[in-house]
Amino acid sequence: MFEEVLYKSLEKLSSPHSLLEAMNYSLQAGGKRLRPLLLFATLYGFKKNPVLGLQVATSLEMVHTYSLIHDDLPSMDDDDLRRGKPTNHKVFGEAHAVLAGDALLTYSFQLLADLNHEEITNEMKIKLIKLLSVSAGPEGMVGGQIADLEGENQSLSINELEYIHTRKTGRLLEYSILAGAILANATDQQINHLRGFAHHLGLAFQIRDDILDVEGTEEEIGKPVGSDENNHKSTYPALLTLDGAKRKLAEHINLAKQSLSLVENMDQSYLEDICNLIAERNN
Amino acid sequence: MFEEVLYKSLEKLSSPHSLLEAMNYSLQAGGKRLRPLLLFATLYGFKKNPVLGLQVATSLEMVHTYSLIHDDLPSMDDDDLRRGKPTNHKVFGEAHAVLAGDALLTYSFQLLADLNHEEITNEMKIKLIKLLSVSAGPEGMVGGQIADLEGENQSLSINELEYIHTRKTGRLLEYSILAGAILANATDQQINHLRGFAHHLGLAFQIRDDILDVEGTEEEIGKPVGSDENNHKSTYPALLTLDGAKRKLAEHINLAKQSLSLVENMDQSYLEDICNLIAERNN
Repeated sequence: MFEEVLYKSLEKLSSPHSLLEAMNYSLQAGGKRLRPLLLFATLYGFKKNPVLGLQVATSLEMVHTYSLIHDDLPSMDDDDLRRGKPTNHKVFGEAHAVLAGDALLTYSFQLLADLNHEEITNEMKIKLIKLLSVSAGPEGMVGGQIADLEGENQSLSINELEYIHTRKTGRLLEYSILAGAILANATDQQINHLRGFAHHLGLAFQIRDDILDVEGTEEEIGKPVGSDENNHKSTYPALLTLDGAKRKLAEHINLAKQSLSLVENMDQSYLEDICNLIAERNN
Repeated sequence: MFEEVLYKSLEKLSSPHSLLEAMNYSLQAGGKRLRPLLLFATLYGFKKNPVLGLQVATSLEMVHTYSLIHDDLPSMDDDDLRRGKPTNHKVFGEAHAVLAGDALLTYSFQLLADLNHEEITNEMKIKLIKLLSVSAGPEGMVGGQIADLEGENQSLSINELEYIHTRKTGRLLEYSILAGAILANATDQQINHLRGFAHHLGLAFQIRDDILDVEGTEEEIGKPVGSDENNHKSTYPALLTLDGAKRKLAEHINLAKQSLSLVENMDQSYLEDICNLIAERNN
């Protein structure tokens, strides 16, 4: 149902055709849809109908997609392939890729301001907009991307690596879960424990990513194995050895589950399942 | 007072230093501050204390600044100078310029969600966020920028030229005025007449820009005279002759003033003054 809503999310827009095409190309390029999944799992956990989160999940996936389009640009990671398909700028050119990203980011806020459901109050909308902008902005995702770029070709400490990852990928994963909690009208205490869960889940996600880059197959991960090493990126296996990275992964998975177990009045099994998937994922 | 608020607007952010530097560089590069001026003039017109609009004006100037940074990129207009200073990517590199723009755009929404003033209701905040995203997004400014890029080296009709300008610059100018009206709790009727005013004001602004590119001096306009012709851009003087463009300018100024005169219960003199400034501006 979510894929269908996402695919139709730009239908109503009257914009130049080439812009919509570039936006849709990357929105529809597949991917794990991990962030929407986390949002829906949180809603299920609070016994809410996940339909409540469809538009928020669409907005969220747009922000994630914009960040991928900009990260892939020649001036950034200069990637030709994403999920086995040519990157946005390879198909539409750099100018269209920059603008498709800009448009997705801007439109994601419109979707939040436009939320129209009897259970969603104005206060909730403002909380969502505030949290999304903090998570994706200069103190969040964009700050992490800058730190990542500046850390290239340098040997970073574990603390520096965590600074990058908690911002570059962590904050938006955290938003995915907390957005569900906001829609479910969760208490501050529930939100705090979910924040702890999200923090460790995000780091686990990244460590697993680094491990896959060493151990995975090109078919599984959709990009050449060993690309981190070739790009001189600091990684957990490089800093801790492969075994050390695996121990660190298990540690964060455990801490995530501990935080999750503290969330009262919630069926935590949905989020726990995703946690296990992340620990074991091969792509 | 606004310049001071704008200069301090990033002070509280804990982000990588280089990102804040790149954001501040363009925010503090001067400019006419036309958009904040329109917002404050609207508030004055409704007998509101303009302090009410300081944070909204800051957010607005951030969106305008992000659009300039991205427009100047090598893949877009490839400009080396902006207001007589090196463009953002010339100083900080392309990656930082893309990300500084992304961060300014994202943070502008945070400033709106964060508005904290007894006269500003949650409903007003959502109206502002909705209107900003529509004005700056795929149907607004970004759509206009795409149409502008695709219209290069083509001879456009007046209608095509108006399509570009109403979106690329018009929508954000319109937002500047309507944001003031929203903060002043204006009626739908007042807003509709202000929308008409903004439409013609935006086109007049652009026509004057085109005329200055022919008639102005490099010192006045801060860039080489005749750059539109050299870049094969469609302009009003090229389509209508210089005299025709001047007549069109006068026409839109008159229509703007007519719409403005219909706004009841407002002191229109502040906006009218700006209208006259735009008609006669030399930079």
